[in-house]
Amino acid sequence: MNQVRVIEVKQSVFADNDKRAAALRGELKERGVFLLNLMSAPGSGKTTTLRRTAELLKDEIKIGVMEADIDSDVDARAMAAAGVRSIQLHTGGMCHLDADMTRQGLDELLAEGGVELAILENVGNLVCPAEFDTGAVKNAAILSVPEGDDKPLKYPLMFQVCDVVLINKTDVAPYFDFDLDKCREHIKMRNPSAVVIPICAKTGEGVDAWADWLREQIAAWRN
Amino acid sequence: MNQVRVIEVKQSVFADNDKRAAALRGELKERGVFLLNLMSAPGSGKTTTLRRTAELLKDEIKIGVMEADIDSDVDARAMAAAGVRSIQLHTGGMCHLDADMTRQGLDELLAEGGVELAILENVGNLVCPAEFDTGAVKNAAILSVPEGDDKPLKYPLMFQVCDVVLINKTDVAPYFDFDLDKCREHIKMRNPSAVVIPICAKTGEGVDAWADWLREQIAAWRN
Repeated sequence: MNQVRVIEVKQSVFADNDKRAAALRGELKERGVFLLNLMSAPGSGKTTTLRRTAELLKDEIKIGVMEADIDSDVDARAMAAAGVRSIQLHTGGMCHLDADMTRQGLDELLAEGGVELAILENVGNLVCPAEFDTGAVKNAAILSVPEGDDKPLKYPLMFQVCDVVLINKTDVAPYFDFDLDKCREHIKMRNPSAVVIPICAKTGEGVDAWADWLREQIAAWRN
Repeated sequence: MNQVRVIEVKQSVFADNDKRAAALRGELKERGVFLLNLMSAPGSGKTTTLRRTAELLKDEIKIGVMEADIDSDVDARAMAAAGVRSIQLHTGGMCHLDADMTRQGLDELLAEGGVELAILENVGNLVCPAEFDTGAVKNAAILSVPEGDDKPLKYPLMFQVCDVVLINKTDVAPYFDFDLDKCREHIKMRNPSAVVIPICAKTGEGVDAWADWLREQIAAWRN
């Protein structure tokens, strides 16, 4: 069993989260670290998607992952087993990460240097994480086929704040009443500029398009 | 398209939620209304489970359902289409319901009288709803197969506060790495007295065992 570092992050006492997030983003820019905030409901496949992403990108960019959960270290162990630098953040019961909690994680993740792409796997929750700017350059959400195509109707903010939405578990689409066109429509209703990429993290299908999107974002941000 | 009543519930300004929940529970007991709080992650199948439950119980007990969501009225319309008295609660962005918000919904649901089993379908969220006593007699959670058997490890409080856990979408088990025995173990670790019932709300399999559990709880509470 892999040993992983577990960090207990404390809720920020600071009300001015937006300012702190902007400051963190500025510092990361200076250090050359691109921070991605990955959000979804529980069990949508964030960790599996990150393992696939790392497979495609790890030879060209140095990746570090922060796995946020209320308890357990199963995700950080899974990432470590895949050869990705990872730490586990425990939120002490909190349902989301704010900029200060993200900074506490980054202090640890970046301590040894070398990380160019830092990914925060936020707490599995379609509501609260969307309310807090973590300091990330881009926000990504995963919506998996078994959850249903109506989720953008019920959880508006998550889809408003996301730059990209990955529709995961496309391999099981035949077994669920999921209409991809309707789902795209619902997402566009919340956020006309959101990019939608269908993937199957389990088989790897579509993950190359997502890796391409990420490459472009990182390149654009560096210039 | 069915017309459904949509109630905007406001977050309580009262810090003493536990007291208010206990008071609400007492009043409901006097009025002969059993309140069930049904929680899960987004897309676990709460509404489909409730439609199946209503099919089995509606001839013996008068059911009323409160569908809580941040936005949309798709769930209340689905319940109304199934012939179940239902109202939609909008939480104004809130990630959970507290006792006072539940009371606001019940005032509306019970206004016409006759409801014996009131069911609150909480906001789809495995974190925050577990922190607030709604005044319900019993708490139920649904965990669906596609979400994975590790969820009780990551979301401890939800499984601690639940009297019963329904493992839904068992029909798709062959397509997912889901170990039911391991899942039971993880649930028992959080809550040794939790009852675990595997169901498939889509096909109706196992829903009779859940309806039996509900009948027993209501009978025990009436005596």
